Amino acid sequence: MFKLSTCGFMSGDIVLQPMVLRARLKAPMEQLGFCTKVPRNVNLEKLQSGYLFPEDKNNGYIINLLDSTISRRELQHIEKYPNAKLISLGIGDTTKPLPQIIASQMADYAFGLSTDIGYSGYGPEQGNKALRKAIAEVFYKNELVKDTEVFISDGSQCDITRLQLLLGSDVTIAVQDPSFPAYIDSSVIIGQAGNFEDSAKKYQSIEYMNCGPQNNFFPDLSTISRADIIFFCSPNNPTGHAATRKQLTDLVEFARDNGSIIIFDSAYATYIKDDSPRSIFEIPGARKAMTSFQVAIEVSSFSKFAGFTGIRLGWTVVPEELLYSNGFPVIHDFNRIVCTCFNGASSIAQAGGLACLSSEGFAAVQSVLDYYMENAKILVETFACLGLKTYGGTNAPYIWVHFPGSKSWEVFSNILEKAHIITVPGCGFGPGGEEYIRVSAFSHRDTILEASRRLKILFS
Amino acid sequence: MFKLSTCGFMSGDIVLQPMVLRARLKAPMEQLGFCTKVPRNVNLEKLQSGYLFPEDKNNGYIINLLDSTISRRELQHIEKYPNAKLISLGIGDTTKPLPQIIASQMADYAFGLSTDIGYSGYGPEQGNKALRKAIAEVFYKNELVKDTEVFISDGSQCDITRLQLLLGSDVTIAVQDPSFPAYIDSSVIIGQAGNFEDSAKKYQSIEYMNCGPQNNFFPDLSTISRADIIFFCSPNNPTGHAATRKQLTDLVEFARDNGSIIIFDSAYATYIKDDSPRSIFEIPGARKAMTSFQVAIEVSSFSKFAGFTGIRLGWTVVPEELLYSNGFPVIHDFNRIVCTCFNGASSIAQAGGLACLSSEGFAAVQSVLDYYMENAKILVETFACLGLKTYGGTNAPYIWVHFPGSKSWEVFSNILEKAHIITVPGCGFGPGGEEYIRVSAFSHRDTILEASRRLKILFS
Repeated sequence: MFKLSTCGFMSGDIVLQPMVLRARLKAPMEQLGFCTKVPRNVNLEKLQSGYLFPEDKNNGYIINLLDSTISRRELQHIEKYPNAKLISLGIGDTTKPLPQIIASQMADYAFGLSTDIGYSGYGPEQGNKALRKAIAEVFYKNELVKDTEVFISDGSQCDITRLQLLLGSDVTIAVQDPSFPAYIDSSVIIGQAGNFEDSAKKYQSIEYMNCGPQNNFFPDLSTISRADIIFFCSPNNPTGHAATRKQLTDLVEFARDNGSIIIFDSAYATYIKDDSPRSIFEIPGARKAMTSFQVAIEVSSFSKFAGFTGIRLGWTVVPEELLYSNGFPVIHDFNRIVCTCFNGASSIAQAGGLACLSSEGFAAVQSVLDYYMENAKILVETFACLGLKTYGGTNAPYIWVHFPGSKSWEVFSNILEKAHIITVPGCGFGPGGEEYIRVSAFSHRDTILEASRRLKILFS
Repeated sequence: MFKLSTCGFMSGDIVLQPMVLRARLKAPMEQLGFCTKVPRNVNLEKLQSGYLFPEDKNNGYIINLLDSTISRRELQHIEKYPNAKLISLGIGDTTKPLPQIIASQMADYAFGLSTDIGYSGYGPEQGNKALRKAIAEVFYKNELVKDTEVFISDGSQCDITRLQLLLGSDVTIAVQDPSFPAYIDSSVIIGQAGNFEDSAKKYQSIEYMNCGPQNNFFPDLSTISRADIIFFCSPNNPTGHAATRKQLTDLVEFARDNGSIIIFDSAYATYIKDDSPRSIFEIPGARKAMTSFQVAIEVSSFSKFAGFTGIRLGWTVVPEELLYSNGFPVIHDFNRIVCTCFNGASSIAQAGGLACLSSEGFAAVQSVLDYYMENAKILVETFACLGLKTYGGTNAPYIWVHFPGSKSWEVFSNILEKAHIITVPGCGFGPGGEEYIRVSAFSHRDTILEASRRLKILFS
């Protein structure tokens, strides 16, 4: 029990994070004089601090609350080595300029907003018809998906939350372990996750599906408890593994047997070089068989496909055939969520998205992807020649590097301290990521070559 | 009890909307052969059909599910009178082109994304520092608000949902009646609202604060039950009433006495011509007194201020002093929501927002506002010379027209049938809107003059 303010005490139920406590003690007490009677959301209380990514890149007040985030470590490193040329292979952020054909179409659209003929106000919340149609055609060939099943978003992370709003707190979820933190965090916020168990580093009510080299990055489904919702990302962030056709067929069958819904994240699908499926709707291969359409939603994005990380554009496909247990179509409720909680992606971003899907735009975007994948190849070769085992890097711009017997934060610290390179410790993606680091290929070539040089010095 | 599919029966708890039933019966039965075992979200089941605004402007499948929406009525009218020149004074959507200075700054930014120097990826989730600073300076003069308390959004409607995610299902809410439907709908989706009572046309757990001419559009606070959260919009959509300083002072005192949090929607604040407060943080007038900072959050938008309805840009202010009952700062949790559920507004939209806040941009935007307000004046004068009592139209671009003793849908239908003008029936904003229609001034001048001419013929 610790008195925090004149409002009362923090009860034993509340996880009192040291960083919060410290920040609160720094605050002048007169600022804590008045508390509302509004209870803090119990779900937010359960949410563990986001230690992988910064909570506020520019906000002095908040950043004091943080401790073990990567950005905090980065700041400390810069203070310690002000002259070191720090290289970031951490956050998966695109760095190459947009192809001119895409930027100029957005510029033309934006300028057109100052003319009578070019101005438009609210668009459809679901996105512009032409863009929905282009996505259905380009990404879901052979009429796999109808344009009316495509909902344009401002990015897949935002739609993951909207999907959680759709589903509510009374469903159970399963996630790949390791996986992108947004699935679990949004699940905690909506109230599906239960309490966090410090010893296991897991939320009680979430089914963690371990994926590693021992099972070719695909869970042993015979050991997995049924969950209403299965989040599945392929190519996976962070492991870079693209699930095979056999694996996804097994997953769809598992979902069908259990009456589950798969939320399939294909944000990195355009990086796939081999014949791994780029969409869950390729399973089993035709719409008339319809299996995946009865059990899956797909979220995807222009962020990594076209360098739209800052422009904000993505999409979600909800098939008409997907039904709740009472027979009600999921698409109808998702449409309500989109119309009530969202007002459409920026019209300028949508104009850019359309430019990406023209044949010239698509080819230009592909050359940027090739550039990043050449970076990935350099990184894979670097680790290979150091005798380190890596995964990913061939169908995804992430390299997942194994350091057997090591703690991932220690590996992170060692590489930062001695090579001045930021990576991501694997345990940030879940307990299944321990012993690994994730290295991103989203950099300029000279940066990658310099990183390769430093890594070779460090580990050889 | 009605058999809907092979999955089972709709239970008696589920409100079976006739439109849904009809649509389902049209669906081929073989499509209903497989249902998942995922239960439909009970909150979505409670949500009444959105009959004011279209749920899908372009989606044939979904639009068949709709019945009484305005868009449905519009479509029927066009079928009936294919040659009528329909005028829409319904949805509050901007129509005037952007000032060139703003469009060209966005165009320059967009084109710059194709250059090494101009490209940028992810920005801070909370928004670009320069824009946060400009908003704090331009809209909250005299250092009322710090830039670190300003969170950039893709529009106030989207942030209203994120605020509901922040608050969770265990809080009680109060809304103005009538009010913009998003407050209630988002409350239903997150699970705060309870069941809908058909007779009262109200959700059981929501406190409806009636606002009409009898109380100068401000609730009699002595009759209002305490709620954790009070949604309050000024100038109000739909009534157009800008709350006076005395009214807002009373509201802040009421919130302080009850330990409530006000979510203040100031999306139309730049339309205020008199000395009504443009922000809740003007109460009582200085930060050091701090009352409103201890009890309020403000959501706002570039949509109506700068014609950004399609571009998507807004902001939310969460003061550092605002604390939950346990003393925890609300800003910290909101920051988590923004970082987890959102990835920042489009960088191009943010460049446009910054252009709006330069002195030249601000003046250009103001001239568009003046244009819409001249429209509003014409509409107010039109109804006045017909002997109809109106409210709003002087501090807001909406005119709230009273038809004593009439049903608002009947007034809507009469004006549509005889004058070929779309308005909004007041009851769509809550039971307190019955006997009224809302008329929007967001049109071109010639459209407004033609509407005025037709209305004079209809009602004189």
